[in-house]
Amino acid sequence: MGKEKFKEAIYPYDEWKIREESFDIETNYRDETIFALGNGYIGMRGNFEEGYAGPKNTSLQGTYLNGFYESEPIIYGEEAYGYAQNSQTMLNVTDSKIIKLYLGDEEFSMFAGELLNYERTLDMKEGVLTRELTWQSPAGKKVAIKIKRIVCLTNKHLAAISYEVRPLNFSGEVTLVSALDGAVTNQVNEDDPRVGSDFQGQVLNLVDKEQKGNFAALTQKTNNTEFELVCGMENQLETESDFRLQTDQPEQMVRANYIVEAREEETINLTKYITYYTSRDYSADRLLPNAKDTLKTAKEEGFNKLLTTQKEYLAEFWQQAQVEIEGDKALQQGIRFNEYHLLQSVGKDGKTNIAAKGVTGEGYEGHYFWDTEIYSFPFFLYTKPEISKKLLEYRYNILDDARQRARTMSHDKGALFPWRTIAGEECSAYYPAGTAQYHINADVIYSLKRYMEATDDTEFMLNYGAEMLFETARVWADLGDYIPGKDNQFCINDVTGPDEYTAIVNNNCYTNYMAQMNLEYAYQIATWIKEKHPDVYRELKKQIELKEDEVTNWKEAADKMYIPYDEERKIHAQDDSFLDKAVWDFKNTPQENYPLLLNYHPLVIYRHQVLKQADTVLVSFLLGDKFDLEQKKRDFDYYEPLTTHDSSLSSCIYGIMAAEIGYHDKAYNFFMETARMDLDNYHDNSQHGVHTAAMAGTWLGLVNGFAGMRIYEGELSFDPYLPEKWDSYKFNVNFKGRRLEVEVTSGEVTYNLASGEELEFYHQDKLVSLEQGQKISCDLDGE
Amino acid sequence: MGKEKFKEAIYPYDEWKIREESFDIETNYRDETIFALGNGYIGMRGNFEEGYAGPKNTSLQGTYLNGFYESEPIIYGEEAYGYAQNSQTMLNVTDSKIIKLYLGDEEFSMFAGELLNYERTLDMKEGVLTRELTWQSPAGKKVAIKIKRIVCLTNKHLAAISYEVRPLNFSGEVTLVSALDGAVTNQVNEDDPRVGSDFQGQVLNLVDKEQKGNFAALTQKTNNTEFELVCGMENQLETESDFRLQTDQPEQMVRANYIVEAREEETINLTKYITYYTSRDYSADRLLPNAKDTLKTAKEEGFNKLLTTQKEYLAEFWQQAQVEIEGDKALQQGIRFNEYHLLQSVGKDGKTNIAAKGVTGEGYEGHYFWDTEIYSFPFFLYTKPEISKKLLEYRYNILDDARQRARTMSHDKGALFPWRTIAGEECSAYYPAGTAQYHINADVIYSLKRYMEATDDTEFMLNYGAEMLFETARVWADLGDYIPGKDNQFCINDVTGPDEYTAIVNNNCYTNYMAQMNLEYAYQIATWIKEKHPDVYRELKKQIELKEDEVTNWKEAADKMYIPYDEERKIHAQDDSFLDKAVWDFKNTPQENYPLLLNYHPLVIYRHQVLKQADTVLVSFLLGDKFDLEQKKRDFDYYEPLTTHDSSLSSCIYGIMAAEIGYHDKAYNFFMETARMDLDNYHDNSQHGVHTAAMAGTWLGLVNGFAGMRIYEGELSFDPYLPEKWDSYKFNVNFKGRRLEVEVTSGEVTYNLASGEELEFYHQDKLVSLEQGQKISCDLDGE
Repeated sequence: MGKEKFKEAIYPYDEWKIREESFDIETNYRDETIFALGNGYIGMRGNFEEGYAGPKNTSLQGTYLNGFYESEPIIYGEEAYGYAQNSQTMLNVTDSKIIKLYLGDEEFSMFAGELLNYERTLDMKEGVLTRELTWQSPAGKKVAIKIKRIVCLTNKHLAAISYEVRPLNFSGEVTLVSALDGAVTNQVNEDDPRVGSDFQGQVLNLVDKEQKGNFAALTQKTNNTEFELVCGMENQLETESDFRLQTDQPEQMVRANYIVEAREEETINLTKYITYYTSRDYSADRLLPNAKDTLKTAKEEGFNKLLTTQKEYLAEFWQQAQVEIEGDKALQQGIRFNEYHLLQSVGKDGKTNIAAKGVTGEGYEGHYFWDTEIYSFPFFLYTKPEISKKLLEYRYNILDDARQRARTMSHDKGALFPWRTIAGEECSAYYPAGTAQYHINADVIYSLKRYMEATDDTEFMLNYGAEMLFETARVWADLGDYIPGKDNQFCINDVTGPDEYTAIVNNNCYTNYMAQMNLEYAYQIATWIKEKHPDVYRELKKQIELKEDEVTNWKEAADKMYIPYDEERKIHAQDDSFLDKAVWDFKNTPQENYPLLLNYHPLVIYRHQVLKQADTVLVSFLLGDKFDLEQKKRDFDYYEPLTTHDSSLSSCIYGIMAAEIGYHDKAYNFFMETARMDLDNYHDNSQHGVHTAAMAGTWLGLVNGFAGMRIYEGELSFDPYLPEKWDSYKFNVNFKGRRLEVEVTSGEVTYNLASGEELEFYHQDKLVSLEQGQKISCDLDGE
Repeated sequence: MGKEKFKEAIYPYDEWKIREESFDIETNYRDETIFALGNGYIGMRGNFEEGYAGPKNTSLQGTYLNGFYESEPIIYGEEAYGYAQNSQTMLNVTDSKIIKLYLGDEEFSMFAGELLNYERTLDMKEGVLTRELTWQSPAGKKVAIKIKRIVCLTNKHLAAISYEVRPLNFSGEVTLVSALDGAVTNQVNEDDPRVGSDFQGQVLNLVDKEQKGNFAALTQKTNNTEFELVCGMENQLETESDFRLQTDQPEQMVRANYIVEAREEETINLTKYITYYTSRDYSADRLLPNAKDTLKTAKEEGFNKLLTTQKEYLAEFWQQAQVEIEGDKALQQGIRFNEYHLLQSVGKDGKTNIAAKGVTGEGYEGHYFWDTEIYSFPFFLYTKPEISKKLLEYRYNILDDARQRARTMSHDKGALFPWRTIAGEECSAYYPAGTAQYHINADVIYSLKRYMEATDDTEFMLNYGAEMLFETARVWADLGDYIPGKDNQFCINDVTGPDEYTAIVNNNCYTNYMAQMNLEYAYQIATWIKEKHPDVYRELKKQIELKEDEVTNWKEAADKMYIPYDEERKIHAQDDSFLDKAVWDFKNTPQENYPLLLNYHPLVIYRHQVLKQADTVLVSFLLGDKFDLEQKKRDFDYYEPLTTHDSSLSSCIYGIMAAEIGYHDKAYNFFMETARMDLDNYHDNSQHGVHTAAMAGTWLGLVNGFAGMRIYEGELSFDPYLPEKWDSYKFNVNFKGRRLEVEVTSGEVTYNLASGEELEFYHQDKLVSLEQGQKISCDLDGE
């Protein structure tokens, strides 16, 4: 609906690499996203070291630090009480990628002279971006250039560039200019509300510069948040020829100019070590010393050591997260790319999270949404659970902001997580699709519950989890009411569910089910802690002033939760009034009017039966044990044709449920829409950054979709099938410290407990028990 | 609820005058509103001629021209398709009130020296504001000062000030400085969303100055709208003493300094004639010549002539609009004040309307709302119908903007009037309480229908009315849908009714009833024109491309209109979901939390049963023949306790319905809340301007409330009673060109057809017929 399906693949197929063999101005903007590097903290778009001379809107020169932001008061045409007050916008920070090359007086540029050959490769096994090219200058000088860029996955403060240049047909002066440019600004907002903020102009102000030989650093400070940032570099030139170093410091910049008396066919290699430290992590006086230490160590160990460490880290990652698909290389590549970018995007320090666009672009201002908990979290939980724990820690770290937000929303107790934020304050400037999405609270708790089932991390629950759990339950208890006209069931009015094409409704089915889970789980955990850890319980109650009757009220609210259901159609109603609206006139909606949100006033959209993304169908996946299969099918059959998938979060969920219901063709098609969403620029907006949640959705599509993995009441189960077009697929799942390999081939699935103690799980209805190293194969009956 | 009832009267009781006997900084801000003068075009706040030296937030120096505005792009934290794009803000224009007085070197100021006596009077029979005072300078010089200010009701471009000063204990130099100050700005927005815009700084730029003897003028131009404004003055000094004139022109200003060798006990009189012309009325090259002509004529005729003309105009007005209440002088004064300010506020040129605050302040940015049609319009219709016609003409004049707005809202045909505007473009920056209030369309048509019933102005219907009627009906037809789940009745989803404490709901009762009226009336008029004026019908159909099946569709939609009704409670439901919400916890809401909108997030308010203002009860008044008395009573009984009256539009409507139902005490109390709302500053915000709609509501409260006037199916009827505390009351009603005097005394009502041909109407159920000059008295039976 509104999309061309299955675009031609843009990048040539390669199992472990994303590669482009020519440079194209038309696609450069998007390529910068695809070739972006990151480590969950530093993000560097795939910009060229020498800069970019192409036309407007064909490039975004961007470097980002996850969680490093500027704030401004949000301006409303008409303000009201309780509106979010301040923006938080991830900043484009000091550009450290710059290495300019001069052959005599001629400056190397992709836009001048002649490109004799060109290749750029993102190697996902090595974690390195390489650009190799041969260039002939307007005056006829030829050089071979090879540039490797790395953003270290094992040290969030470190990146490096190795720049090799070799004169092919001349000897003479070659200059390499390595710089840090602090005069950077964020992108100006376009007409698309999803792109970013209205930030304009310079936000980072120069505080200090230091330059000494091969070392240089800029210290800058943000206008309003007053965060300090140090960006440092240490350059190392290797050449057999003579050279001299000149340094200079134009405004907001530091530069090291290496002027080499180059000889034909002799390689010059400049290695540039880069570091970023900010006052969000350390006190301001520690930033420069830390930067120097980091650079010193990196230089001592050398670029090759960085490459080795990177490769080792990735080898472990791929062992844990590896997915193999036989029979569709494009897909294999797409899934690897998605997993790789997820790893590059996710904050691992408990203070940062995973932004909608990771650290690859400015879309959605670098905000964290529910996307984390419902989409990205399970990928990490079942592959690298230590990262998923950090994501929960992040939520705990913003719990005080969430408490404050709850007060603003007139809840005397409890916490309401922000719909979108960086540091914890609610930043949604349109509350009907922001604060009204109270389900964020339950989404966080859903991930907590999943985490506990998969890790049995009691300590985490006692120290952090329970507090979040109780505080969110309190808001549900206060938000809802026992409504006489609804048989005194517990109703939740005036909220917005996941589907943002319907807003401010009563009893959103998704929300009510998820709130019920939240309340029920809060009651269970309270009861369990009370019994098993009475001291902790006493302390926690005191700390948050919890009364015993609150706990029983949670149970009652959960038990009496109202679930909207249409008896005639025998489907869940998305909310109390959804089914009493006119169905959107899809037939007369031209292709170019999608996504609807860019072409219709919200009121026009809201008054019709039309979905942006999975809503009821999503909860039938998340809380699948509350729905029987026939019910899931009826709900799917009703809502799927009404869904535009204008949100990138939609297809993967429909794909998973299509797989469960047995709509295998649909499942495959939905999966394919998600699997290469950014590689094939399916939503035509990958230039603004990758779609992290949809990337995670691919993994879900495979594991929860085709392999039918579920965890109901703590029990792991699979119900796999093999898509027709594939020969086999294989993935790993980490569950309670065990690593289970699952391989599905034609007619058979093999479970292999690769590591960890005995594991019980279900294959379809059959209980399977494996010892470490043990394998079992089961028939894919019923397929 | 949330209000102290019946504050002490602030101004001493006087039948025709509003008077203050002392100057008080504390109340000055409000007094400037109370003593504001206007003629529906020029508005001058009650600022002192010599300026104001009091503390911040105790004054607003303001001069306004109805319909003269600046635009800026509206900024949204998060924008979406179809949002209102530009603000329109009534500008504070060139200050022409300035006359400064110097006794030698000492400048007269209310904040220096000693005020020996002081009185300020707004005379509503004369239409003049007078300030009389005796002032002793710090050096001991005494002067008597008498200032009369007039804004001419018969010439929208003209105002004048007569400034008399008489030395009481000295002879010597007295200087009068008469100036025009163009360096004016609008008030900066406070935290109250109702106050105004974020306009800051100078918007009017100087284009030209001219000064020649006693004449001077400033020509200015707005930044964005590029409207030109000429403000001119002509001064005339009368004195027996010697004097000389100096002129000077500081930046953005012109000044005439009259330096008089004054003698003790001899009066000096400076008359200042003031005019305003703008390019919204005339081409830019006509502004200065017109200004000169106006000033020349005024000076030739003299100040006394202005006074006489003003008095004559008002004599006629008071004859038509006069209300007399025996037994409550405070009320008598209050009602007169309200009627007087309505006359001062209403635009009479068909290009302007009546702003929420008239031309007395900057509240609501000088915008026109539905307040006009539902509140102010009937007052003018039944007292000065020629003004009500101008208000309808205004709507016709913005019909093209309304068509454009309908397109933006995805209606292929028809027109959607703006929720708030000056020149026609939708300016509401919060669509849930703006564009979502589609009922504005029906409100306009309601006033058209009332106008036709009361005037039989066929020409107006054929030339203007029908086009508006058909275009609005088209939007209803497109907006609603026949919903299967509602027995295929015609439902209108996702709109907001008059009660802004509930937003974006399905089947708002008020909206559906009013839309039904609109559709039905459109069908009737179409049928009538087709039969009686086939040529006009053919032409109109061609012009707006109307198809015959559209007309029958209107009828069908009206016939099948869904009306939400609760069978158990036997009340109308305010909307589909209102009764399924929790009742607001009034008991635990402290006084200081009213109005709720300033203390609770919209979501908190929306999810409760709580009303800002009459909604269902309003339609039970407007379309009273659709409800039987018991139904009205049940609806009233249910909704009244849920209403905060946080809107000033609320009390008068509840008062009218209380009267009809027989809740006489309530009716009286509601009436009293409205009757002196601004005089007693009941809402604590009269400083921002008068509440024009509530002022009109007083008249409605008396005529529709106590006297029970209704027009059902074109038939005029009364069902009066006398409030216990009064001896009698009397008012005039203009109906079909007749003037009917109605006087209600204890036990009896007398109807007197003061002018016009035979009139038939009902007293209670009894048909009464009167010839011109004939009187009839009827018993107030049942009382």
